[in-house]
Amino acid sequence: MPEFLRLVPPSEALDRLLANLPAGQIPDQEILPTSKALDRVLAASIIAPHPLPAFPRSTVDGYAVRAADTFGAGASLPAYLTLAGEIRMGASAGLTLQPGQAALVFTGGMLPERADAVVMLEDTQTAREGEIEVLKAAAVGQNALQVGEDVQAGETVLESGTRLRPQEIGGLMALGVVEVPVVRRPRVAILSTGDEVVAPETEAGPGQVRDVNSYALSALVERAGGLPVRYGILPDRYEPLLESARRALAECQAIVITAGSSVSTRDLTAQVIEALGEPGVLVHGVAIKPGKPTILAVAGGVPIVGLPGNPVSALVVAGLFVVPVIHRLLGERRAAATSRVTARLSVNIPSEAGREDYLPVHLKNSPEGLVAEPVYGRSNLIFTLVRADGLMRIPPEATGLAAGTPVEVALF
Amino acid sequence: MPEFLRLVPPSEALDRLLANLPAGQIPDQEILPTSKALDRVLAASIIAPHPLPAFPRSTVDGYAVRAADTFGAGASLPAYLTLAGEIRMGASAGLTLQPGQAALVFTGGMLPERADAVVMLEDTQTAREGEIEVLKAAAVGQNALQVGEDVQAGETVLESGTRLRPQEIGGLMALGVVEVPVVRRPRVAILSTGDEVVAPETEAGPGQVRDVNSYALSALVERAGGLPVRYGILPDRYEPLLESARRALAECQAIVITAGSSVSTRDLTAQVIEALGEPGVLVHGVAIKPGKPTILAVAGGVPIVGLPGNPVSALVVAGLFVVPVIHRLLGERRAAATSRVTARLSVNIPSEAGREDYLPVHLKNSPEGLVAEPVYGRSNLIFTLVRADGLMRIPPEATGLAAGTPVEVALF
Repeated sequence: MPEFLRLVPPSEALDRLLANLPAGQIPDQEILPTSKALDRVLAASIIAPHPLPAFPRSTVDGYAVRAADTFGAGASLPAYLTLAGEIRMGASAGLTLQPGQAALVFTGGMLPERADAVVMLEDTQTAREGEIEVLKAAAVGQNALQVGEDVQAGETVLESGTRLRPQEIGGLMALGVVEVPVVRRPRVAILSTGDEVVAPETEAGPGQVRDVNSYALSALVERAGGLPVRYGILPDRYEPLLESARRALAECQAIVITAGSSVSTRDLTAQVIEALGEPGVLVHGVAIKPGKPTILAVAGGVPIVGLPGNPVSALVVAGLFVVPVIHRLLGERRAAATSRVTARLSVNIPSEAGREDYLPVHLKNSPEGLVAEPVYGRSNLIFTLVRADGLMRIPPEATGLAAGTPVEVALF
Repeated sequence: MPEFLRLVPPSEALDRLLANLPAGQIPDQEILPTSKALDRVLAASIIAPHPLPAFPRSTVDGYAVRAADTFGAGASLPAYLTLAGEIRMGASAGLTLQPGQAALVFTGGMLPERADAVVMLEDTQTAREGEIEVLKAAAVGQNALQVGEDVQAGETVLESGTRLRPQEIGGLMALGVVEVPVVRRPRVAILSTGDEVVAPETEAGPGQVRDVNSYALSALVERAGGLPVRYGILPDRYEPLLESARRALAECQAIVITAGSSVSTRDLTAQVIEALGEPGVLVHGVAIKPGKPTILAVAGGVPIVGLPGNPVSALVVAGLFVVPVIHRLLGERRAAATSRVTARLSVNIPSEAGREDYLPVHLKNSPEGLVAEPVYGRSNLIFTLVRADGLMRIPPEATGLAAGTPVEVALF
């Protein structure tokens, strides 16, 4: 049964939502050229088809040698080696070093058979045609990369659920993996309600406001890796709202509804969500400011987030609940660290215990490090967020924070 | 004249490059629907065509009142007000409050003329039909948003050079700005050289490696807001390299060349860049590891970055020089803080004074906060970066860092 009266702490609320999503679902996937897969999430693990490097390579310009031939060599007592040849870049070494032999090799070049070290050019000199002096002893493996030193054949190089950054794209190319299976972007339905809301391109009359939420939330969904599907602006009436929500349930993998701001329209949203299916509303009211009237629900396996109508609350709450839902739908492995910075608070901040507060802050550099300066403005004002670099979190146990306190800021 | 021997500190090298770019150039622009402009950079400032809010609004469900009518009211001595009507959402209030009157209004609703405060529903009770009791005095402005409290008409709400985040998209929609001028993505040429390099889709023979740099750098350029244009893999010979570089100079706003790794091919890159035009090579050699052989140049107003051939060095150095060049070409205003986190070093790290070191690290959460664990691997191994969450910077004055030292990590 939904608990309408108790405000649920945000982390518990999210856990409850995620726990009610179907477990072990395999997300839809598609095959993309690796060069077009930046920021997409792998739908399967990638196994190295061959080792990297695939052949022993020099890391310097120098002479490939058998290290044993240089033991004891020094400036006053060089080791004399016969030049067996020069290794051409991009070609097989094509020779085997005999004892007492060396071969000229450039950075990245392939070592000849039986070579086990490379002496840098600077540590050699040419005695006469076809012979070099090695002025420094080489240890086995010195200036040489072994086959498989980066990656072994058969090794899992990237796990399913990895989001592809430039280095993953590069690593895949190094292995010749030019196509990858990625998770299809989950379709996230966005429904805006409110009799006062009109489309952005229309002239807003007295008492009317333009639809901010559909577009700001679409952008947030897009950034998180989802595909926003806008269902338009709906009136504050049960039937049309339910009809659109049912359509969204059939067509999308997640639903976001921004409710009107009044108590009655918020209750309407909860009723509509309850009518969509089991288990229905899981959380109605979160111990967070802004965003108290947030609704979290699941119907027919589809996560549903009911957001407060005012744009600032809607964006803040979407960051806390919609973004993790998209990550879950993508099967994304949790990142070790999101983009959070620590900064010192510029002023004293009051806060109520028992509630997490999220305050938009502007970050400034100072000789003592980053300073977080609250951007004041009521939570209804979208340009408050425009002036901010991130959100400062005030933990629920705090009854206020003193100027100078180090605080964590989640960057936008 | 280029300085070939002195290694330039990275920040000085970047300053020198940027200082040699044409000043006051107006970047090419294009008009986009605001809903498609996420993460693009504004090419002109945006002026508010009207105030926000455009009409006085209630922030609660309650009764719009003239505050003076409630002065002195309390639970034991309520103020009695006559109900003048109910404000419909999305409609003009359509009435003027007379002294002693109140009007029912919902969150976001328009206040009637002469109302200057809103009393929350909870602080009222209905005495009899058409009359309410106000149980708490209201201050002027209480629970009410004034016209222009978020934005004044004629105010510059977004400056040219602003990168559009979800909240900027929302703010523009609130103002009815449904199209915006944005800077065209600068075309960034990417040239890969190396006789040993083959295309990723080909079978790499002995001594050959697949082209990692063209694709990893394309991804980096894309993320920074540029449009990567790949000129393919070029042999380590002067004529074909110069020809491609000249074509890139004519077609693109920036050029990135990854040189072969040997000394001779690096010199070749420098010669080709010198031949492109004035002022030519500005920096040849940066006091940084990895990335010492980096070349920075300008020819005909176009910035050129010559990167080391090995993929890890190439990506690290591109982050330091190519990304800021793209930001400059976009006319982007500098962000207050990039994505940097502070973490404690897990082990002792040696370092050479006089050189900035960038070390790939893996971040782990611990009860004491984030821990940065170096990902070991020689700088030639691309999967070293795959295993890392970010790059730790060791400042030039350090001769090593002790375990437990707080370090700054730039997240990928």
